[in-house]
Amino acid sequence: MKYNIAIIPGDGIGPEVTAQAKKALDAIADTFDHHFTYTYAQMGACAIDATGNPLPEETIAVCEASDAILFGAIGDPKYDNDPNAKVRPEQGLLRLRKSLGLFCNVRPVKAYEQLIDRSPLKRERIEGTDISIYRELTGGIYFGEKHLSEDGQVASDGCSYSVAEISRIAHLAFKEALSRNKKLTLVDKANVLETSRLWRKTVTEIAKDYPEVALDFLFVDNAAMQMILNPKQFDVILTENLFGDIISDEASVIGGSIGLLASASVGTDNALFEPIHGSFPQATGKDIANPLASILSAAMLLRHLNLHKEAELVEKAVEKSLELNFTTEDINPESAFGTSKVGDFIADYILNPT
Amino acid sequence: MKYNIAIIPGDGIGPEVTAQAKKALDAIADTFDHHFTYTYAQMGACAIDATGNPLPEETIAVCEASDAILFGAIGDPKYDNDPNAKVRPEQGLLRLRKSLGLFCNVRPVKAYEQLIDRSPLKRERIEGTDISIYRELTGGIYFGEKHLSEDGQVASDGCSYSVAEISRIAHLAFKEALSRNKKLTLVDKANVLETSRLWRKTVTEIAKDYPEVALDFLFVDNAAMQMILNPKQFDVILTENLFGDIISDEASVIGGSIGLLASASVGTDNALFEPIHGSFPQATGKDIANPLASILSAAMLLRHLNLHKEAELVEKAVEKSLELNFTTEDINPESAFGTSKVGDFIADYILNPT
Ligand SMILES: [Mg+2]
Ligand SMILES: [Mg+2]
Repeated sequence: MKYNIAIIPGDGIGPEVTAQAKKALDAIADTFDHHFTYTYAQMGACAIDATGNPLPEETIAVCEASDAILFGAIGDPKYDNDPNAKVRPEQGLLRLRKSLGLFCNVRPVKAYEQLIDRSPLKRERIEGTDISIYRELTGGIYFGEKHLSEDGQVASDGCSYSVAEISRIAHLAFKEALSRNKKLTLVDKANVLETSRLWRKTVTEIAKDYPEVALDFLFVDNAAMQMILNPKQFDVILTENLFGDIISDEASVIGGSIGLLASASVGTDNALFEPIHGSFPQATGKDIANPLASILSAAMLLRHLNLHKEAELVEKAVEKSLELNFTTEDINPESAFGTSKVGDFIADYILNPT
Repeated sequence: MKYNIAIIPGDGIGPEVTAQAKKALDAIADTFDHHFTYTYAQMGACAIDATGNPLPEETIAVCEASDAILFGAIGDPKYDNDPNAKVRPEQGLLRLRKSLGLFCNVRPVKAYEQLIDRSPLKRERIEGTDISIYRELTGGIYFGEKHLSEDGQVASDGCSYSVAEISRIAHLAFKEALSRNKKLTLVDKANVLETSRLWRKTVTEIAKDYPEVALDFLFVDNAAMQMILNPKQFDVILTENLFGDIISDEASVIGGSIGLLASASVGTDNALFEPIHGSFPQATGKDIANPLASILSAAMLLRHLNLHKEAELVEKAVEKSLELNFTTEDINPESAFGTSKVGDFIADYILNPT
């Protein structure tokens, strides 16, 4: 099969880690006889430096013409530390998500055996955890009407959701649950919020289309507790934007390493895949950045293209690198391998799995 | 000194645990030569049964005439399971907080040495944790304008805060920080929300009145991570209603036992003290409920009355009961003591500390 893949390396360690993910994709193409055409585009601080714009029009065009987007990281301290900066690298990603209509953020959280002892949680709590969090990304209070009274005494934020906004992500989450352990937990605050009640009503209605999936509900404050007490109870979590921000960030630290966490931003016609770690400027160019989250992002990308066996092989390669301790210094301080060597290991394993 | 204390035993295990807290208060009165006058009042399911009203007028009057309120627990399954119930026990507490103007919820979270191994977090993460969370309780999105469009397609919730609402709780939190480790962390989402920006601006302004307190800021999603990664970094946390609900519930499980967590709801003229555990109907009347959270609520009540040495002695008694394993079955399954025996132990220790 032929696929067009847009690659946006971005800032900091972005180019280094996406280069390793591309090695994995190349090895997959080789092994399964696919043809991936890569088109590179700029976004973030590097795009500001080159064009003055964190999201050049050309980048949007490249993404629109692609089947999927592999993205590295965004952000540069030289912009963070300038309060007068008119354009900021991060605006590039927000605008790209908006112009491509990427309304759903997917965050897998998995306890890898080799990392469990690094988790802040005790082994017996975290062992076996495998969660997929579906967070609505373009609605809710983050995008609501903001207001500050003229005298500066009263501020307000509006939060609103429509049935259409809830439905489109709910269907994605139910489909994900079907392909996993068939459990979906809606996280809301329906005892207090009108928007949460609309979420609950809409999702309950949609659940009728997915009779195999067991749906349950959890208030967000209770969910924040349960994520620590018993994370393995979760399969797919569906939630609105603000709750998803909090719960997915909370969940991100229970696995033991942020260096392994991939994510997707999915829309109707396109999807973007990226590690959740940032541009990590201090590590740039040192060949020490952990490429596994970017490589797992490539696995998510493959699954999005319905290349399930291919995705599994990439994931197996990542597990092998952990098993053999063939990892970067953040995971393995004693006998660490460089970013590029880990990428080579993954690609080699894909070509010759054992 | 003379004090009027309102006692609202409430439902379920409420009467049993408040009876133990009263034993502690009696022992304190004896030891320090205070005079506590107790007036009992009804609230919750028991008040509905007796009067049809979860919050009888008389209860409000008793509370208004008191210096502080000791409250047990609220809720009965016979109301929970009746979707047609017009009055619900929980309404009693919400109305009482409202009529007394209790705008600030205080939640201490402390890692007791004897409970650390019960925590879902690893010992080295939780050891030494001692946090006081100040949550705004009467504003924000929980009390905002709710709306559902006529066609049922769009729901909305408003969130608003005024400088006055922020200031009154901020002063309480800064004062708490002054009496502790002099660090205050404001949890907000000021990069996105207008209300959060008003919180940040107002609290930054008020910080000038407390030059000894170090103020810092944390976005709520990051706070949810930090609470797991490194809870001992926190001293006093100040935050708005929804964020406080999530963060304080998250924090409540890291200490290893919810059976030890007390809380306060504080206003300008009054304050109510209660364990965070509920009415626990299954345990009612069995003499197995853990009274320590209620006893620690009494310690918070004493501190609120500026009886600091008295509060410390109650806390020391609780620590002693943990140290000697003189506890109920939830903490000590092997050789457990009953609710009442634990209360006696605490009172005896207060009278004869070692
Ligand atoms: Mg976040
Ligand atoms: Mg709560």
